Amino acid sequence: MRVSQLFAPTLRETPAEAEVISHQLMLRAGFIRKAAGGIYSYLPLAWRVLKKIETIVREEMDAKGGQELSMPIIQPAEMWQETGRWSVYGDEMFRLKDRHNRNFCLGPTHEEMITTIVRGDVRSYRQLPLMLYQIQNKYRDEIRPRFGLMRGREFIMKDLYSFDRDEAGLDESYNKMYDAYTRIFTRCGLTFRAVEADSGAIGGSGSHEFMVIADSGEAAIVYCGDCEYAANVEKAELHPITPDTEEALSLSEKETPGMKSIANVCQYLGINPEKTIKTLAYQTDTGSLVLALVRGDHEVNEIKLLNKVGCLQLNMASEEAIATLIGSQAGYIGPVGLADLKNVTIVADATVMKMHNAVCGANKPDLHYVNVNPDRDFKPAIIADIRLIQASDPCPRCGAPVKTARGIEAGQVFKLFTKYSTSLQATFIDDDGKEKPMVMGCYGVGVSRTMAAAIEQNYDQNGIIWPVPIAPYHAVVVPVSIKDQAQMALAEKIYQELNANGVEAVIDDRNERPGVKFKDADLIGYPLKVTVGPKAVNENLIEVKVRRTGETMYFGPDEYLAGIQNLLAKL
Amino acid sequence: MRVSQLFAPTLRETPAEAEVISHQLMLRAGFIRKAAGGIYSYLPLAWRVLKKIETIVREEMDAKGGQELSMPIIQPAEMWQETGRWSVYGDEMFRLKDRHNRNFCLGPTHEEMITTIVRGDVRSYRQLPLMLYQIQNKYRDEIRPRFGLMRGREFIMKDLYSFDRDEAGLDESYNKMYDAYTRIFTRCGLTFRAVEADSGAIGGSGSHEFMVIADSGEAAIVYCGDCEYAANVEKAELHPITPDTEEALSLSEKETPGMKSIANVCQYLGINPEKTIKTLAYQTDTGSLVLALVRGDHEVNEIKLLNKVGCLQLNMASEEAIATLIGSQAGYIGPVGLADLKNVTIVADATVMKMHNAVCGANKPDLHYVNVNPDRDFKPAIIADIRLIQASDPCPRCGAPVKTARGIEAGQVFKLFTKYSTSLQATFIDDDGKEKPMVMGCYGVGVSRTMAAAIEQNYDQNGIIWPVPIAPYHAVVVPVSIKDQAQMALAEKIYQELNANGVEAVIDDRNERPGVKFKDADLIGYPLKVTVGPKAVNENLIEVKVRRTGETMYFGPDEYLAGIQNLLAKL
Repeated sequence: MRVSQLFAPTLRETPAEAEVISHQLMLRAGFIRKAAGGIYSYLPLAWRVLKKIETIVREEMDAKGGQELSMPIIQPAEMWQETGRWSVYGDEMFRLKDRHNRNFCLGPTHEEMITTIVRGDVRSYRQLPLMLYQIQNKYRDEIRPRFGLMRGREFIMKDLYSFDRDEAGLDESYNKMYDAYTRIFTRCGLTFRAVEADSGAIGGSGSHEFMVIADSGEAAIVYCGDCEYAANVEKAELHPITPDTEEALSLSEKETPGMKSIANVCQYLGINPEKTIKTLAYQTDTGSLVLALVRGDHEVNEIKLLNKVGCLQLNMASEEAIATLIGSQAGYIGPVGLADLKNVTIVADATVMKMHNAVCGANKPDLHYVNVNPDRDFKPAIIADIRLIQASDPCPRCGAPVKTARGIEAGQVFKLFTKYSTSLQATFIDDDGKEKPMVMGCYGVGVSRTMAAAIEQNYDQNGIIWPVPIAPYHAVVVPVSIKDQAQMALAEKIYQELNANGVEAVIDDRNERPGVKFKDADLIGYPLKVTVGPKAVNENLIEVKVRRTGETMYFGPDEYLAGIQNLLAKL
Repeated sequence: MRVSQLFAPTLRETPAEAEVISHQLMLRAGFIRKAAGGIYSYLPLAWRVLKKIETIVREEMDAKGGQELSMPIIQPAEMWQETGRWSVYGDEMFRLKDRHNRNFCLGPTHEEMITTIVRGDVRSYRQLPLMLYQIQNKYRDEIRPRFGLMRGREFIMKDLYSFDRDEAGLDESYNKMYDAYTRIFTRCGLTFRAVEADSGAIGGSGSHEFMVIADSGEAAIVYCGDCEYAANVEKAELHPITPDTEEALSLSEKETPGMKSIANVCQYLGINPEKTIKTLAYQTDTGSLVLALVRGDHEVNEIKLLNKVGCLQLNMASEEAIATLIGSQAGYIGPVGLADLKNVTIVADATVMKMHNAVCGANKPDLHYVNVNPDRDFKPAIIADIRLIQASDPCPRCGAPVKTARGIEAGQVFKLFTKYSTSLQATFIDDDGKEKPMVMGCYGVGVSRTMAAAIEQNYDQNGIIWPVPIAPYHAVVVPVSIKDQAQMALAEKIYQELNANGVEAVIDDRNERPGVKFKDADLIGYPLKVTVGPKAVNENLIEVKVRRTGETMYFGPDEYLAGIQNLLAKL
């Protein structure tokens, strides 16, 4: 491809709307253009990257026995009503009516559709297992689309669905996909971790997320330096911390005028946060109150809390709700004396229950209890692990202190079990003659998000640094002066030879100053830049610069091809 | 691929809903499943066919300098309002609102989107020409989706848009695409014709349709056996037929009681239809009347008429409108004496104006005029070519009698000129320093429709007969008995060898009777069937049957591979 013809309009300025680096660089380097909030066109360079990621994904899916198909983007409401998700999805689902006033949505995912297809055509255990996948646009009407392709409203996903006879089969399919995902992100040239994950609103349990490691990642993860353990902080399980051995003292009140935060109370009373109980008040969808208790130095894990309480959504309670339901106010809430209240559920982290002589709010302004002893002074409705893991917490598996990092969720594998096959009656006749629901899994790769994540992980102040396997092109050949016939002839020869030998190269034949071409080359992020100037023509030295390291090498006319091939293989 | 694992659920019965053969066969052979009216899932076999068509299309687009990108399916209303097509598209456009109540549509086409992108990033003639394309789902909310993939509401299109400095550039781009399309349908192994076409509602003039020839085709085409001329009947131009040389006689009335049709009038008066003038009454969107005159043996071409009158829609006029506006009734309408009426436009076919002493309705029940001489007895507002070409009409280019055929429109190339660049202000600075609108073309291939058209053209009573280049697989290897170890071992060896040598083969390893496997093989339409039974094991004779011809050949173990490769190359 000649750059003079390539539609890759680069921008000098960073568009103001772009908050994250991948968004900024994809706009500046001419990879994407915005059509509406969270909705983008992929220009030719981006499309090449996406096709490469897709090819890697496709090869790995096929290698595991996946069969590619393509389901409609526009889906009739009926199948979503059968599973109940027509209402669950709320405003996040794009909905429309056809000219006959029938309801449709734009598929945010395809469990309903694939299960409907399979139930219609699979009758016998002999037709199982099945792994069916597609690579396709998905739609989610995010309340605030942002970060470019990181959280779009239209995005490209690979979604595979597995159908097995039993849980042993599901385990096998799940492991195949786990393995395939490990290969996919490795082949894309990305640094990533597979972490244990919460299975969220999609249902089922048993899930891993594949996190591309990047400081800008929205997800916090923990991992153990000693063993293999890694998890999304939302998911990471925690054992209760060993109790102190103090004798229980008598409960009493203490004035704490204006002391609303844990830090203030500790300073005022001269104690450590480890001796306090923090009480957070949440409101459920139905308006009742959930009081979550964690130790003062801990944080509530809202995902765990949601799962334990078993409701769909939790929001921080309003001052009004706190006043009405428990007659208290924020900063002075505590669990003592609230056990029998209607519409109030107390959920205590397991560590809280091991504490002695702790401090907590007394549900009156400017007053705290001291010498609170859980179980003696209050009995929570639920005792569970509801706190967030923190750096230096013990690894749930081996006990060594954990480390934290940030990541971008680029893939997720889920065990769905029989959630959808039961609600949609996708059954088969097993070899024992019995009708059973199929056991399902689902497995997603965010294809467009992976492209963005690759940039979040690989860039510098000059632009993108593409990993070779997903670079739009491997190399750019830059003749320093297109008016110099010898330079142009040599550059053209190199360009042709590279492409004839498996190196995807462009030639920057634009009538522009070399500085402009070099800047664009760095911005776009070709792994290698081959400069053809006077040195190449007069001294037979072809300059090859490695984008990632900045390293510059010179090759003779007979060596440059092998040199470039070697560099690409190593990068 | 092993058929025991392949998700290709075949059906014994033809589903009642399927009207056309491609729809019936794709359902029966396990290629597609319906999600809603006009909305289908493509199962793995169909997806393989579509990918092959896409690959051919992509290679030919790239060969002409096309650059692939991908634009959103969900498009904001604003750009459609700029061109006025937000209202023009009517109910055929799927529309939706996002959670913030903003209007979007599902793209039926992408002129607005691509022009908006290009106007934002192209400033100079140096950046032109550009040819940008995508392969993507398109959406049209057809009033009555039918014929399976032939007229779906969600379908796959390749759409390319060209941007040039001037009309000479557009001609060049258009010719490149015409050439590419010829190569595409040739490479797909289809019999087709490129025909001159009306450019329809999309605007502009200068267009060809690529018609896959099939008796079931919705489009009628004419072509000349002597010269290269071919056209959609809607488009085919006609010269007025040479006038007779009769002397004009005096206009008079004749009673024709109950004689409403041309046939009845001719029989009653003892004349030929060539001596009659047929008057058809249409109503425009604004309620006025258009009277179209053609010779009694000719048919009105409503597309031509629409273009001449310059309105958006024409419907047959109601009895009421005819009575109110011209005081006449169907069967007795004629042009005499209506010239000065408001809200009535008379459009005469050019041939009509060459007639002498003709018969036409007298706008009174049971009465006709005889000896009508156009121009003397009535003066039409418009004289033009408004009739449909018919078999044996003279070729508009060479005069030889034309032939007719039916076709499926699988591709279309259009000159848009500056229609969209003007309304969307997509301008550039030319080398003379002047700002000019870009000159555009658009070029579509119906990818999913091409698959259906291939079946409409290639099938027999047993199923599909795939052209080799787009067959889902080239060959099926059928071991007659999977319990016979020698047969299975040989079949497996052949299956492996074929795939290792570029022949895409499946092995039907299902525990089914051979008759079931043969029936499925014919239904699915693999070009070759390799049977491994006793003859292969005992006599070293491997049977290869050609799906299209029914021809059966036998090859030895060392010859079968070359034999199959030769067959595939010839098919």
